[in-house]
Amino acid sequence: MVDALSLRINDNRFREYFEELARIGATPEGGVNRLTFSKAHTEAREWFCEQAHEAGFELLIDGAANHSAILRQTGAEKIMLIGSHLDSVPNGGRYDGALGVVAALEVLNTIKDADLQLPVHLEAIDFTDEESTYAEFLGSRAFTGRLNVDTLHIRERGLSQFNEALSVRSLSDSSFFSCGRDPNEYVGYLELHIEQGSRLEESGSQLGIVNSVVGIYENQIVFHGRADHAGTTPMSSRLNAGLGASSFNLAVDHLVNEQFPSCVANVGKMIFEPGAANVVPKRVEVISEYRAPNEQLAEELGRSIAAAAEGAASRFGLELEIIPAGHSRAIPMDVQLQKVISTTAEALGLCSINLASGAGHDAQILVDFTPSGMIFVPSVAGISHNPKEITKWEDCVNGANVLLGSAIRWAHQAL
Amino acid sequence: MVDALSLRINDNRFREYFEELARIGATPEGGVNRLTFSKAHTEAREWFCEQAHEAGFELLIDGAANHSAILRQTGAEKIMLIGSHLDSVPNGGRYDGALGVVAALEVLNTIKDADLQLPVHLEAIDFTDEESTYAEFLGSRAFTGRLNVDTLHIRERGLSQFNEALSVRSLSDSSFFSCGRDPNEYVGYLELHIEQGSRLEESGSQLGIVNSVVGIYENQIVFHGRADHAGTTPMSSRLNAGLGASSFNLAVDHLVNEQFPSCVANVGKMIFEPGAANVVPKRVEVISEYRAPNEQLAEELGRSIAAAAEGAASRFGLELEIIPAGHSRAIPMDVQLQKVISTTAEALGLCSINLASGAGHDAQILVDFTPSGMIFVPSVAGISHNPKEITKWEDCVNGANVLLGSAIRWAHQAL
Repeated sequence: MVDALSLRINDNRFREYFEELARIGATPEGGVNRLTFSKAHTEAREWFCEQAHEAGFELLIDGAANHSAILRQTGAEKIMLIGSHLDSVPNGGRYDGALGVVAALEVLNTIKDADLQLPVHLEAIDFTDEESTYAEFLGSRAFTGRLNVDTLHIRERGLSQFNEALSVRSLSDSSFFSCGRDPNEYVGYLELHIEQGSRLEESGSQLGIVNSVVGIYENQIVFHGRADHAGTTPMSSRLNAGLGASSFNLAVDHLVNEQFPSCVANVGKMIFEPGAANVVPKRVEVISEYRAPNEQLAEELGRSIAAAAEGAASRFGLELEIIPAGHSRAIPMDVQLQKVISTTAEALGLCSINLASGAGHDAQILVDFTPSGMIFVPSVAGISHNPKEITKWEDCVNGANVLLGSAIRWAHQAL
Repeated sequence: MVDALSLRINDNRFREYFEELARIGATPEGGVNRLTFSKAHTEAREWFCEQAHEAGFELLIDGAANHSAILRQTGAEKIMLIGSHLDSVPNGGRYDGALGVVAALEVLNTIKDADLQLPVHLEAIDFTDEESTYAEFLGSRAFTGRLNVDTLHIRERGLSQFNEALSVRSLSDSSFFSCGRDPNEYVGYLELHIEQGSRLEESGSQLGIVNSVVGIYENQIVFHGRADHAGTTPMSSRLNAGLGASSFNLAVDHLVNEQFPSCVANVGKMIFEPGAANVVPKRVEVISEYRAPNEQLAEELGRSIAAAAEGAASRFGLELEIIPAGHSRAIPMDVQLQKVISTTAEALGLCSINLASGAGHDAQILVDFTPSGMIFVPSVAGISHNPKEITKWEDCVNGANVLLGSAIRWAHQAL
């Protein structure tokens, strides 16, 4: 174990991997454009296959097009899974997803180079469509055998395009449904990812240990007033739905800032009807969401947001409708894996904090299948889903070394 | 004069006129649908022609399709103009415009029945397209010779439909431009109209004497923030354009209520970009307008609104753009005519107030052509442009008698 834990990844190879990949689908602004099943995405996956081949790893492409490089260990039965995704949002950054896949490949290489014998096989995975070009967490859902027809067909917009992409790859709906793995074969899943926020940077931390993926609650909140002539109706006689919506927006911002520091909320859109300068808004639909690190806080915040909406409606004499528009519950990461990541970071002398992930990740799908954990590295200025997305290279190396050390520790501890 | 001023309109005939007209283009909800040049509008104008014919008035249809019934007076040279419009907004009410045309016809009838000799001819007019189905104040602009090509063609949406309507009626662009009257032939213009607001009702008044038509100023106010991930970006690090727009909306409402009681303002629409629940709004465009009874107040309010926008932008760290999006200046009505209306109302024992019209009217176009005045009667609950639009019948009769009395007084006074 002493030798194993003193191992470090090969910085040069890691960087070379990262930079080669960043050139695939590169945009003039310095990011990448690698939508699921696009030409650039396919090229990135071909690059993944080449690296696996050159390094002598087993290659597995499953019925959901998840790509795996596998380093077999003599006498091992179970598998330790590490990875992330190679697809990007439109005009995205170079680090999101790619860093975790490159680090996973590099972890396999480091262990192979050191001729280290682990009690588990190591599988480096690139999940399909993490960024939901076609469906949310498509690859990881299929991997865990928890894909349902609704999820697969949720995006009607892209369905014909999706089916075309499948046929080119000899995939089909049924291949997605039949590629679920056996949880008994896995000991755990670890993912290195950029934070996509600024909490690590603001707290001066080098590493984040994800304790949960936040719950996301979408609301459609409608304020009903009365359409009146905006010239002839006295201000005091109006039932202006826009004032209710505006008041609600400010109230939610204040509420979360003052009373829910670990949560976030956002009013992303307000739809005014009839929507003319000279008509008092009759109906305003507010498209909003809030996120909380656990169910208890989510419930408390949900109640407070409803109360804020009621207060805003009543202040301006409006009727109110609150329509829940879907949610995903807060998902805690595996507690033992968090401890392992923490021990590893400490052993490397890194300053880390525990934090909730504000964004969704494949790990939230994996966690019910096998013990799962996530390691975050700082995003400069919190910029994400943007060509300007950057993580300092030393933080990337630290993250990869924590991934390596945690995987080794877990490989022994989990059995 | 004593006899003349003791004249009253014939309530039965007036009501019969009103009800006949209300059946043309009647909607199930109790209003009318008489868009300019529609079948129902054409039928309403045919009804006008029939009444003029039956009563023995001269009929004049000019190159802008303005319809006039003229009661000639022996020895008179000039003309006193009274009237309004027979077109409606989509799904409008029975009173808007129609009341003024019916009252004008009834005034001519009353004077003819009484065999009253006035020193001016009387012309009852139905102006074309007051409600701007095709172009703003199309008929009255053509009447005054102040139509320009831009006004005539401003509504590209309806241009082909408009041209078709013209060809059916043997009208043309050039007929619109050549039908301007000679201002030296007119002594004045008077229009009876419903208030379309609730100030008369709220003040317990039976009559409103319009002192101006408010100036209307449209603004396009844009708040610029930054699009961030609404899950991963801490609340305190966001530049949320939606908060600026919401704060501005509330500030404008408060400002007008507290400091500009004779003005109104409205935020009719906010356009959020990118407009998704999970993205912090980067850009919010606020479509708004304000109205003021005179230029000085308009300037003061405009400055205060700009300051409110600046305050809202600075509070949330946003950039601001204010783009004036067109305006029509406040237009005072003729002061002498206001006095005449006031004297007439007082002689009839009616309780009146002076007020600004919050909506636009043909009288604001006429006022630069000939001394013009407007008489308002109360709108129940201020409801307007709506099938539920109602004015109590006794208020309609009072309004018509004030129109009659004021026209007679002005006919003598103006010469």
